[in-house]
Amino acid sequence: MTELDQRRGVFIVLEGVEGAGKTTQARMIGEWLHARGVPHTIAREPGGTAVGEAIRHVVQDRPELEVPPETELLLYVASRAAYVAEIVRPALARGEVVVSDRYSWSTLAYQGYGRELDLEAVLAVNRFGTGGLEPDLYLVFDLPVEVGRARQRASGQSDDRMEQAGPSFLQRVREGYHALAGGNPQARIVEADADPEVVFERVLSALREALPETFGGPGVSIE
Amino acid sequence: MTELDQRRGVFIVLEGVEGAGKTTQARMIGEWLHARGVPHTIAREPGGTAVGEAIRHVVQDRPELEVPPETELLLYVASRAAYVAEIVRPALARGEVVVSDRYSWSTLAYQGYGRELDLEAVLAVNRFGTGGLEPDLYLVFDLPVEVGRARQRASGQSDDRMEQAGPSFLQRVREGYHALAGGNPQARIVEADADPEVVFERVLSALREALPETFGGPGVSIE
Repeated sequence: MTELDQRRGVFIVLEGVEGAGKTTQARMIGEWLHARGVPHTIAREPGGTAVGEAIRHVVQDRPELEVPPETELLLYVASRAAYVAEIVRPALARGEVVVSDRYSWSTLAYQGYGRELDLEAVLAVNRFGTGGLEPDLYLVFDLPVEVGRARQRASGQSDDRMEQAGPSFLQRVREGYHALAGGNPQARIVEADADPEVVFERVLSALREALPETFGGPGVSIE
Repeated sequence: MTELDQRRGVFIVLEGVEGAGKTTQARMIGEWLHARGVPHTIAREPGGTAVGEAIRHVVQDRPELEVPPETELLLYVASRAAYVAEIVRPALARGEVVVSDRYSWSTLAYQGYGRELDLEAVLAVNRFGTGGLEPDLYLVFDLPVEVGRARQRASGQSDDRMEQAGPSFLQRVREGYHALAGGNPQARIVEADADPEVVFERVLSALREALPETFGGPGVSIE
């Protein structure tokens, strides 16, 4: 069912609270890979899947809807299941480097730690949706909650349903990310309270250390 | 989290393949309860929840969408979570008899047995969505698959995504219902290949036997 045998590429996930710079860093990783001719896909859920866009409309664009936390979580994972099936697995099967702006840990951090839903149940639902597909590396972008919020406000991005839940919620999310990354050999925490170029140096350093075959440098062959 | 302590009513679920007459029987049970002054709610997912209607639009009204089976299941359970939170639990807390046209077993029968997804995983996702709320009684309406399909065609109902999957799929669904009901003390199979009045006599007989305090007769007090 998981078709992991078809997997040949490298799967990298960027996580962290809003305003941590994930989207910018994903773009910069893409430019770095592009300059070296490495086939890659930069994506974020729902990543252009038609059903995922329809789900996003339900969960994000209609703040007037009453959405119980279980429903919210199931909708996010429903969208993720389509994203995995239509975007991530095919790209990995083609041997690409897939850089995903958010993945399962967003659900664990926001709904599990943030909304305080049962973590084991959240994990089980996620495993079902992803067919157990785990990334080769999690990069967790970390910065103080208030800095992330200030960045968002400065960029003119409106607070969505999650951000509206307030600073103590976001603090639980941040601590959730620390708990998830702590001791996980597939995870690196990146200090994100700096200019994008500085953060990107940290990203590259983490990538080189964790995935030397892919990010060792321009002379390194890519399978 | 489950708030089962608040529960005072009786929760009855009607299950079975399309064309088995569940909707008609739910209405007849409602009329029977109404005639005896028993407070009740007759409902089917999404039961008027706004988010459930929005989800139904995604999963049922757009046959052109590519929907992986995991996504489909998660969407159904997302809708169920809102249905439980907004319709079923409040009615049970008011002490009503709740008659639900379909519930968790539809997902187990159609997605688990029919689409052959992992049953344990389907169960875990369902438990998360419902908070573990189980009915007091499952009535499983059983009839040959081809009879159900003929009834649907005669009534002018268009085949939806599920029915399009064909007779061998529906046969697995029917057998799934048998497997779920078999040996479950909370379940009764009702032979549904007969006129509605005849089937309703069987329904009443099953209700009287399984829930004598509620359906014992007009003289029986309702808590």
